[in-house]
Amino acid sequence: MRICVLGGDGYCGWATALYLSRRGHRVAIADNFLRRQWDFELGVQTLTPIAPLAERLRVWQELTGETIDLFTGDVCDYDFLSSMIDAFRPEAVVHFAEQRAAPYSMIDRKHAVFTQVNNVVGTLNLLFAIKEIVPDCHLVKLGTMGEYGTPNIDIEEGYIKIEHNGRSDVLPFPKQPGSFYHLSKVHDSHNIMFACKIWKLRATDLNQGVVYGTVTDETSLDETLINRFDYDDVFGTVLNRFCVQAATEHPLTVYGRGGQTRGFLDIRDTVRCIELACLNPANPGECRVYNQFTEQFSVMELAQMVQAAARKLGLNVEIDHLPAPRVEAEAHYYNAKHSKLIELGLRPHYLSDSLLDSLMNIAIRYKDRIDISLFLPQVNWQNSRNQRALPLATAQRKTPVATPGGD
Amino acid sequence: MRICVLGGDGYCGWATALYLSRRGHRVAIADNFLRRQWDFELGVQTLTPIAPLAERLRVWQELTGETIDLFTGDVCDYDFLSSMIDAFRPEAVVHFAEQRAAPYSMIDRKHAVFTQVNNVVGTLNLLFAIKEIVPDCHLVKLGTMGEYGTPNIDIEEGYIKIEHNGRSDVLPFPKQPGSFYHLSKVHDSHNIMFACKIWKLRATDLNQGVVYGTVTDETSLDETLINRFDYDDVFGTVLNRFCVQAATEHPLTVYGRGGQTRGFLDIRDTVRCIELACLNPANPGECRVYNQFTEQFSVMELAQMVQAAARKLGLNVEIDHLPAPRVEAEAHYYNAKHSKLIELGLRPHYLSDSLLDSLMNIAIRYKDRIDISLFLPQVNWQNSRNQRALPLATAQRKTPVATPGGD
Repeated sequence: MRICVLGGDGYCGWATALYLSRRGHRVAIADNFLRRQWDFELGVQTLTPIAPLAERLRVWQELTGETIDLFTGDVCDYDFLSSMIDAFRPEAVVHFAEQRAAPYSMIDRKHAVFTQVNNVVGTLNLLFAIKEIVPDCHLVKLGTMGEYGTPNIDIEEGYIKIEHNGRSDVLPFPKQPGSFYHLSKVHDSHNIMFACKIWKLRATDLNQGVVYGTVTDETSLDETLINRFDYDDVFGTVLNRFCVQAATEHPLTVYGRGGQTRGFLDIRDTVRCIELACLNPANPGECRVYNQFTEQFSVMELAQMVQAAARKLGLNVEIDHLPAPRVEAEAHYYNAKHSKLIELGLRPHYLSDSLLDSLMNIAIRYKDRIDISLFLPQVNWQNSRNQRALPLATAQRKTPVATPGGD
Repeated sequence: MRICVLGGDGYCGWATALYLSRRGHRVAIADNFLRRQWDFELGVQTLTPIAPLAERLRVWQELTGETIDLFTGDVCDYDFLSSMIDAFRPEAVVHFAEQRAAPYSMIDRKHAVFTQVNNVVGTLNLLFAIKEIVPDCHLVKLGTMGEYGTPNIDIEEGYIKIEHNGRSDVLPFPKQPGSFYHLSKVHDSHNIMFACKIWKLRATDLNQGVVYGTVTDETSLDETLINRFDYDDVFGTVLNRFCVQAATEHPLTVYGRGGQTRGFLDIRDTVRCIELACLNPANPGECRVYNQFTEQFSVMELAQMVQAAARKLGLNVEIDHLPAPRVEAEAHYYNAKHSKLIELGLRPHYLSDSLLDSLMNIAIRYKDRIDISLFLPQVNWQNSRNQRALPLATAQRKTPVATPGGD
């Protein structure tokens, strides 16, 4: 089918675009390269050396014969977005084109406002573009498990039946997001539900857990196709960061007691979930919500698994407990449902020693690119102010690139 | 106490500012006069001839000896907002400074995006300004009963205890707002809850019902102090519009069957509720939600009440059922709690024949200003598109000012 991947140059977007292309779909990417600009702003870089998108797409075409169309622009620019939708006529639009890091949204007021405006306006534009141009097109929107927070009851997939004073209704699951970024996704979810109701659009809101891993069958075909691997305190996800820390025998940085429990998934499952959603579209007027993760872990459990896997590779790794930069419960009940994508056919890649080995080996391979000053959290939820001097790198990151391995 | 009224030139804001001033509080108004600009954009005007704000404030000072400070600017401009907060040092900030009309937000994409960005950014700015400058200040934020939609269960005041699979938690009441405007208030509510949690701010979110009436003890002191009275299809509230229609013996325009049930309150109760919230601040870290209305009515019940009251004044008024421009249930369960402001001391002005008489007499007094072409809904929820040609007035409103009374 014809599928647009908005944000197709990013971590999940790139892997998804290649997977869909290889599975025989006609794929177009839209991207404005803001994600790459944020690396410059923060003075960080992905562990893996990623090629410019045009080069990635050229190599993909050479290797597979498949062409992925590229539209360069910003989904917040309605003229760009609508002309792209009009030109490509997608049957499904996969929307990754948002600012997706909680710490980035908490740097200061300007980053909070940017994150909410960017994400909310991009999604509003997309809803209007679909409605006006391709009303039968299926919106596959990336939400986050972080929309739910950590309620003391089981988390359902988007909706919950509530019995109250002798009556009952199925209502949107109450949301308690934990950052201005997570809030932006809650705003999106409400906007999408409303648009589906009034305009009979089709939408699937994928509340994704924390993604780990970097390699997929497609990105490993050639080094030019290599995917991002973020390990810094702002854009890095926890398991990837732990593996890079372990590879350098740096202590694993657990925030607080480490009882924070979340849903996780392998990036190879992300791409499959997206395809499953596209192949099984929501009905007109339906705003379907799937919880997209495969396993729950606490941060401390992950740290211990990485520590054990590192030991087998001869790496000696401690676990450090840092003051928690976020305002969140350090231990809590957590039981989130995630059966709907399984019912559609997902066969999970569960977290394994071999995956951890693979991640640590990637870190060892690119050890010259590791900057250990990026391991420590610099954005504190309680300290947000109007404007923090930027770039962070100039102000605070003086540590030269470290020689890894404890040298 | 020292109270800032953001949006103090508007319908509720003006009445509130005067009430608080007369009750002995030190009041400052901030406004950017966008509300007056929207009248120009839409080609409409308030039934009552409102004076420029500077003149209103001068007369108020002459009559009462009380000075209300005026800060002219936009809460979306952080430099303006923060310098105002810094200069005035409020103990409470009452935040009315939002785009508050559902139809306005549904005109087209640009109005939807404007409404959400304006409302969300203004409130985010205010949260940061309070946190940085006056962290003990109490935020009194106007939300709307429309955030809840019409669930098939009783509506609680902001939070609901949910029992689920043998566990329970008190969670934010699920929201099903019915326009891009109502959605913006839901976004605000989530942002405020989060800010209170992480920064220990104090907030009261007042989910207000549909306000009717225009006269308060303060605005009636002098004609220069007269308040807005909107009866047009975009900014007019339903009961005010019915009274203007009745005064001209125009049929009352009920949308669909008229079973839409909502909470209503007299503007004299709005101003008292605001003061009650200010006098009884939330605790640090608390985001308190009150449902601010005094009675529930269906639209058809209101139409029949107005029809009966009109008959006593010798006015012969029909009830017309128009196709519903909104996507909403035309008949539904509705039972919303509203006891918390009563517990704080609110003594409601219930809807009465004398209030309806008063509204119809105001309409008769200003009959030369009535434009009956403004009675009919022109914004349809299902027809939103990227951009509608503006102003509406030029494109569609050709009817000259009507002679009222069926002449």
